[in-house]
Amino acid sequence: MTDATSAGANSMWGGRFAGGVDAIMEAINASIGFDKRLYAQDIAGSRAHAAMLAAQGIITEADQQAIDAGLAQVKAEIEAGTFQFSTALEDIHMNVEARLKQIIGEPAGRLHTARSRNDQVAVDFRLWVRDQADAAIEGIDKLMRAFLAQAEAGADWVMPGFTHLQTAQPVTWGHHMLAYVEMLGRDKSRFQDARKRMNESPLGAAALAGTSFPIDRHATARALGFDRPTANSLDSVSDRDFALEFLGAASICAMHLSRFAEELVIWSSAQFRFVKLSDAFTTGSSIMPQKKNPDAAELIRAKLARILGATVALFTVMKGLALTYSKDMQEDKEQVFDAADNLMLGLAAMEGMVKDMTANRDSLAAAAASGFSTATDLADWLVRELNLPFRDAHHVTGSLVARAEAKGCDLPDLTLDEMQSEHPGITPAVYDVLGVDNSVRSRVSYGGTAPDNVRAQVARWKEILG
Amino acid sequence: MTDATSAGANSMWGGRFAGGVDAIMEAINASIGFDKRLYAQDIAGSRAHAAMLAAQGIITEADQQAIDAGLAQVKAEIEAGTFQFSTALEDIHMNVEARLKQIIGEPAGRLHTARSRNDQVAVDFRLWVRDQADAAIEGIDKLMRAFLAQAEAGADWVMPGFTHLQTAQPVTWGHHMLAYVEMLGRDKSRFQDARKRMNESPLGAAALAGTSFPIDRHATARALGFDRPTANSLDSVSDRDFALEFLGAASICAMHLSRFAEELVIWSSAQFRFVKLSDAFTTGSSIMPQKKNPDAAELIRAKLARILGATVALFTVMKGLALTYSKDMQEDKEQVFDAADNLMLGLAAMEGMVKDMTANRDSLAAAAASGFSTATDLADWLVRELNLPFRDAHHVTGSLVARAEAKGCDLPDLTLDEMQSEHPGITPAVYDVLGVDNSVRSRVSYGGTAPDNVRAQVARWKEILG
Amino acid sequence: MTDATSAGANSMWGGRFAGGVDAIMEAINASIGFDKRLYAQDIAGSRAHAAMLAAQGIITEADQQAIDAGLAQVKAEIEAGTFQFSTALEDIHMNVEARLKQIIGEPAGRLHTARSRNDQVAVDFRLWVRDQADAAIEGIDKLMRAFLAQAEAGADWVMPGFTHLQTAQPVTWGHHMLAYVEMLGRDKSRFQDARKRMNESPLGAAALAGTSFPIDRHATARALGFDRPTANSLDSVSDRDFALEFLGAASICAMHLSRFAEELVIWSSAQFRFVKLSDAFTTGSSIMPQKKNPDAAELIRAKLARILGATVALFTVMKGLALTYSKDMQEDKEQVFDAADNLMLGLAAMEGMVKDMTANRDSLAAAAASGFSTATDLADWLVRELNLPFRDAHHVTGSLVARAEAKGCDLPDLTLDEMQSEHPGITPAVYDVLGVDNSVRSRVSYGGTAPDNVRAQVARWKEILG
Amino acid sequence: MTDATSAGANSMWGGRFAGGVDAIMEAINASIGFDKRLYAQDIAGSRAHAAMLAAQGIITEADQQAIDAGLAQVKAEIEAGTFQFSTALEDIHMNVEARLKQIIGEPAGRLHTARSRNDQVAVDFRLWVRDQADAAIEGIDKLMRAFLAQAEAGADWVMPGFTHLQTAQPVTWGHHMLAYVEMLGRDKSRFQDARKRMNESPLGAAALAGTSFPIDRHATARALGFDRPTANSLDSVSDRDFALEFLGAASICAMHLSRFAEELVIWSSAQFRFVKLSDAFTTGSSIMPQKKNPDAAELIRAKLARILGATVALFTVMKGLALTYSKDMQEDKEQVFDAADNLMLGLAAMEGMVKDMTANRDSLAAAAASGFSTATDLADWLVRELNLPFRDAHHVTGSLVARAEAKGCDLPDLTLDEMQSEHPGITPAVYDVLGVDNSVRSRVSYGGTAPDNVRAQVARWKEILG
Repeated sequence: MTDATSAGANSMWGGRFAGGVDAIMEAINASIGFDKRLYAQDIAGSRAHAAMLAAQGIITEADQQAIDAGLAQVKAEIEAGTFQFSTALEDIHMNVEARLKQIIGEPAGRLHTARSRNDQVAVDFRLWVRDQADAAIEGIDKLMRAFLAQAEAGADWVMPGFTHLQTAQPVTWGHHMLAYVEMLGRDKSRFQDARKRMNESPLGAAALAGTSFPIDRHATARALGFDRPTANSLDSVSDRDFALEFLGAASICAMHLSRFAEELVIWSSAQFRFVKLSDAFTTGSSIMPQKKNPDAAELIRAKLARILGATVALFTVMKGLALTYSKDMQEDKEQVFDAADNLMLGLAAMEGMVKDMTANRDSLAAAAASGFSTATDLADWLVRELNLPFRDAHHVTGSLVARAEAKGCDLPDLTLDEMQSEHPGITPAVYDVLGVDNSVRSRVSYGGTAPDNVRAQVARWKEILG
Repeated sequence: MTDATSAGANSMWGGRFAGGVDAIMEAINASIGFDKRLYAQDIAGSRAHAAMLAAQGIITEADQQAIDAGLAQVKAEIEAGTFQFSTALEDIHMNVEARLKQIIGEPAGRLHTARSRNDQVAVDFRLWVRDQADAAIEGIDKLMRAFLAQAEAGADWVMPGFTHLQTAQPVTWGHHMLAYVEMLGRDKSRFQDARKRMNESPLGAAALAGTSFPIDRHATARALGFDRPTANSLDSVSDRDFALEFLGAASICAMHLSRFAEELVIWSSAQFRFVKLSDAFTTGSSIMPQKKNPDAAELIRAKLARILGATVALFTVMKGLALTYSKDMQEDKEQVFDAADNLMLGLAAMEGMVKDMTANRDSLAAAAASGFSTATDLADWLVRELNLPFRDAHHVTGSLVARAEAKGCDLPDLTLDEMQSEHPGITPAVYDVLGVDNSVRSRVSYGGTAPDNVRAQVARWKEILG
Repeated sequence: MTDATSAGANSMWGGRFAGGVDAIMEAINASIGFDKRLYAQDIAGSRAHAAMLAAQGIITEADQQAIDAGLAQVKAEIEAGTFQFSTALEDIHMNVEARLKQIIGEPAGRLHTARSRNDQVAVDFRLWVRDQADAAIEGIDKLMRAFLAQAEAGADWVMPGFTHLQTAQPVTWGHHMLAYVEMLGRDKSRFQDARKRMNESPLGAAALAGTSFPIDRHATARALGFDRPTANSLDSVSDRDFALEFLGAASICAMHLSRFAEELVIWSSAQFRFVKLSDAFTTGSSIMPQKKNPDAAELIRAKLARILGATVALFTVMKGLALTYSKDMQEDKEQVFDAADNLMLGLAAMEGMVKDMTANRDSLAAAAASGFSTATDLADWLVRELNLPFRDAHHVTGSLVARAEAKGCDLPDLTLDEMQSEHPGITPAVYDVLGVDNSVRSRVSYGGTAPDNVRAQVARWKEILG
Repeated sequence: MTDATSAGANSMWGGRFAGGVDAIMEAINASIGFDKRLYAQDIAGSRAHAAMLAAQGIITEADQQAIDAGLAQVKAEIEAGTFQFSTALEDIHMNVEARLKQIIGEPAGRLHTARSRNDQVAVDFRLWVRDQADAAIEGIDKLMRAFLAQAEAGADWVMPGFTHLQTAQPVTWGHHMLAYVEMLGRDKSRFQDARKRMNESPLGAAALAGTSFPIDRHATARALGFDRPTANSLDSVSDRDFALEFLGAASICAMHLSRFAEELVIWSSAQFRFVKLSDAFTTGSSIMPQKKNPDAAELIRAKLARILGATVALFTVMKGLALTYSKDMQEDKEQVFDAADNLMLGLAAMEGMVKDMTANRDSLAAAAASGFSTATDLADWLVRELNLPFRDAHHVTGSLVARAEAKGCDLPDLTLDEMQSEHPGITPAVYDVLGVDNSVRSRVSYGGTAPDNVRAQVARWKEILG
């Protein structure tokens, strides 16, 4: 995160902090190395503040216009890469303000009326996190569409449904893809809730107590797209729960991604061959043509780790801090920056992989059929159609499985005679539930794996996503 | 958490697992030691399932009535403490089912039609977490009321507002209390959102693929108070994001509690003496009468730690698990149980402390007035009333503070002559903003610390809480 | 962990804390529910303390004998299950002391001379953690032996060596087993280092400042098996770094276990079939005979999660605590208890599984040979024997692999003619490095996978373990 | 950490990954953005490897000399800032190798003989972490000296010893400083143990299986300062426990720093005034002269958070990874880099603060004397000198405290008559233990707070540190 000391990373202690006390304090105290990422938010906040000050008659229109034009120029300089950031000026707020003063002179000093760095950084960071919530929602949407496309294509492709990585029952490829659509749908709604909850403007809380200037906090809130101003100035400059909620939602989403990433790694193995990842997201070996290392999937699997680490870090920072602002809270930004960057990267890379991956239908089908995976279908049929008690149904099924195993065949390959020798009531209709295709077709309960269910859910989600 | 091995805690390795392989497997595998807490949810889920099976004609009315009565008896036995839990039966589901069979015989076997332990545990745990969300909301409500009562009583009591634990500006006691009401208000809404999102019934997802029995999942969902059934059976038995979201909300709430707990510890010190905690939540020394150890506050301060630990644990459990159910997920319950218990305990203890604590108004006022805490008020007045540029206003203020410091008095104690010798434009009106009472009264911006603001916010929150 | 509130777990808030303030304070404050596990350590510490007090003439021999006999009786009562623990007496120290007073009367009061609960709990907990370090060392030893037995049996069984779960090069089963022996060897040495570092006696630090009684801390240290007394009384009652170091070592060990657990889950799948786990550590399905759920492996995989959670919890408790003892620190025990229990359980279950598991040599060998896994051997041979530059060696190898792929055979199945058509310098000696058995035999560099290396390492480790 | 995406940080999703699939894969896959910090280690490893290859006759002396000179040039270019890093070349290994090829041509290709990126990154990272362990040891040493200087200066300055932040007993400033010396001494030994354990060379493990080239791993190990080569090639390229152990030691050390940082924040408050921090490590207010924000202390307090976060991240990355190398492990470096940087920064800043801080002896002494802090001394005296049972001693003490409280004086201010009226046996000698100076002088038990003890411990530590 900080690389304030990285120049001396390979030198030993003495060299690293050769600059003495001042170098150490600057290294630990200055935040401009990372908080420059807030420049756009900082300038937007200042422009809204200046406009309000003028509207309320606290500064003159002339000053406001000078400030506005000056800030526009600062922003242009930063985006053009010509702005000179100064570590001595510590943070983005002071860097922008100092440059503004160079450009417009005295009026720059009036911008800070009825404002403090405490509410300024609170509004900057909240705007940034809000943007990231929007970015997460957009990234999730795109990934959901990628999964939906896979689900639609393979609504009726059979594959093994696993518990404990053991084949349990046949399911459909589409149904498996839709499981992730459901998870991502909840992830999206978490970011939406978090965004709504954080969307209050701390601007005007000033240092911590509010101000005696006749400011209009509702006006600045509106100008910055907030739903309303915050209601307590101490809380406004003290809390970072909005960032923690963002990190929590990001961690859950990253957890979901890690699960599909694990599946991709396993499914790509020579032993499974369930899926073929595109060259774009794998690396290979010049002399081992079959080796396709699922690098992107592995890196996505690891993203939860660093997002969770960031979450732990910010919780630990905030633990037991007396109100209001303490400098500890400066440690909030790098954690959230890093978590957000990696979430977005993980979503994008996963979207790319899901779009490009090819299911190996033959391997999936063969695996689905192995291991008497429709034994439960048979037992259910005996209960449902012959009204056998469960215990008896299981006994009959067990005997038939043993018979098939002895014969070296699968359940649908047993003859009706063989079936009836275990239970005379069995009719030819039993074959309708044996075999993996029949099995998945029969799971028509709401939320079940039947292809028609899959298609209905795909349609529902397409309508939701628009 | 588990104390499966605690009997041998003090013996060495050999003794601890003397039972051999079976003892080890039972110790690691059985969950009845903790999941018996789900008994009420398990029985409620089974009763709803049986009622639906009968309504759909899958089992007979007679069987359903036997099941229902039998389950009622099992519940009564558990609540009476007469139920014999068996570790050999592994979990709460099997314990209940085995006892049901003893009571009603064969119909017990039909209860498991179109159901599996996978969806059963998913519905049990979801119901339990939903109850805890409700309990958290109730506990937060009570604590908010306790803070509101303090805020109302002390709407105009002045105290220091701190940044970096340094006196920054005077604020009001009521305003400080309201800061926590705001935090808790957001905490409450997080639990409300989480509750809403989790309120879908996984019952009927069966093992993982749904079922071919003509079940009515909407009916069981309704019967159990869910808004709807889940839409994907694989997702239903695989995900624990609802528990992670609960833990995230609990961690944030516990973080807020840890901050006030820290303040109570510091405020109770001999050096601060801002607050007196009641004997009920402190411990003392028989020979040092002034010593009142804030034990409850310290324990609350630590609760974030274990709730965060539980959060990390469950995220780490879920990381990279291939779908669907894996036994790893059995580790979810103890973490959530422990986190929920400790959150509720922390909320209750904090509520008790807040209700009982007594602000030491004299100490607060004296501290608020120290350190020229109204210097910024003076500077603001110079800007606002005399239209001085900020830089000049700060220069004049600095000179006046130096003068007061030299004279050994506070700013309001300077004479008008002394004031005017630094800037002739200063008028007697300046005294209206000096002094801590005037200072806080002047902070009338929305969300500011002025007593009238505090009273308005108290009224607003009282209306919200009803 | 605490189940102080579990009786009301299913009731709502109101009911849960119906006992009011006192019930809440008792629920949050009392530790006897968990710290009774320290009874043996507490009594051992008290006996050593009393013996020292008598030896120093601080108490009489008669009193000491009464105390010693009384404590022996208390211990016997606890171990017989007849001791009545009282929550009102808060913790194990007070419970033992109160019972001692009942048994021996007044002399019980002299036991607390020159001692405080602060150093008492410090010594109890340190003794307990030290015992757990010993238990971990013993458990690791046993698991190492289990891996060694597997390594010895399969020193020359070939299997695929994976990177990215893609077959990379053939290795031997024994070599893979030995990788875990190495990890566990480091784990063991971490516990040994931790044990050595923590092995200082805090007894006699008293409340925090030491004492004016002429105690002999070296004597109590010796009596309790400590290497020496701690050197600073404030540090002695304040720090829990020994517990954190234990948790760190436990987390690393659990991480290692989680990796082999993951391998067992994957290797047990129908697609891999690398290993057969014994029935003792798996669960099955009555009607799907091939399904063997690796429950124990999955649970071990999850153990890192809860141990890491405990680690995070204790670090977060300790963060930013002013010296010396604060009640927050009471949260240390449950975390360490739970982590230690689960580490020991994980080690024991893993030992059982490793002992009982059967490698499927045919599957391993077949998998090892697939995917031209000896292509790098061929390239290395060309470099080594024909002195080809790497780039050329890779080119020739690539061509030969392509030829084999086209022919549908593996590299050793190519004729010498075919070989020489790609590079005329190739001699029959090339066949000595092709084929998986030749490949692994050739990896004789120190630490390499060659069977002879494996046997040498097995011998080395057997000697170390004795 | 990564800022691969930071250019688009403020743009929305679409813009951020406008480069499409390739840009996404490069962003997630390339590590050169951070692993360039390993350049010195990478080049040192390569030079040692080449020297060994030549010594073993695997490459020619001429090639080795070309490689060595070329690598020296690459290193010089990197340190001069003229090296062009390429993201397309992914990592530091490929960047160095590609440049080497440009410089020396074909021999560059021979450097990779009997080596792989897997063992190369393992050795590079291990060397880097080893350097950081050395840096930590050095930084801890310096901080210990700073605390020792404070301890020596204030061996007999009295201050309150706190439990629960309540005054408990008087202690000496020197004793409090020495508590941290003890903690840091253990921290140092943890890094020493970790260094020793990790000091084995993975070089020569090759991809994962070792090699058939006749390499000499002992030679490269010696050349790089390792104690020996690692004993198992699979383990060598798979494990990161050395990094986790480093992070664990760093977390514990940071925890210790967080505690003193908290004390500095509290001690700097207007209410405590125990210590004055230098201007170098505080920030102020131009108009509030008394405000000295302890920014550096607060930032140090927060450092545990990010180091713990990094620890959690790496544990979570490693959880459940099948052997051997997986790309997930690429996430190890940024976490360790960031943790190491912040530990070193925290140590340096704390050293600076401790050196520069000034104890306010008057405030400390006044606080130490308040609250009848020597009541336990009185009770102990009654037990020790008059042989009163504890219960009686406490009763008498309580009465005397009550009498002093009523009189508005402290215990030493009571007359002998007043003393004797509570217990006739009290002699003038009692005054030798009353009063804070007498109290601390009496605590002569080993490790106790008596000034002579402090001086002896200072001398002991000075000898140890040399």
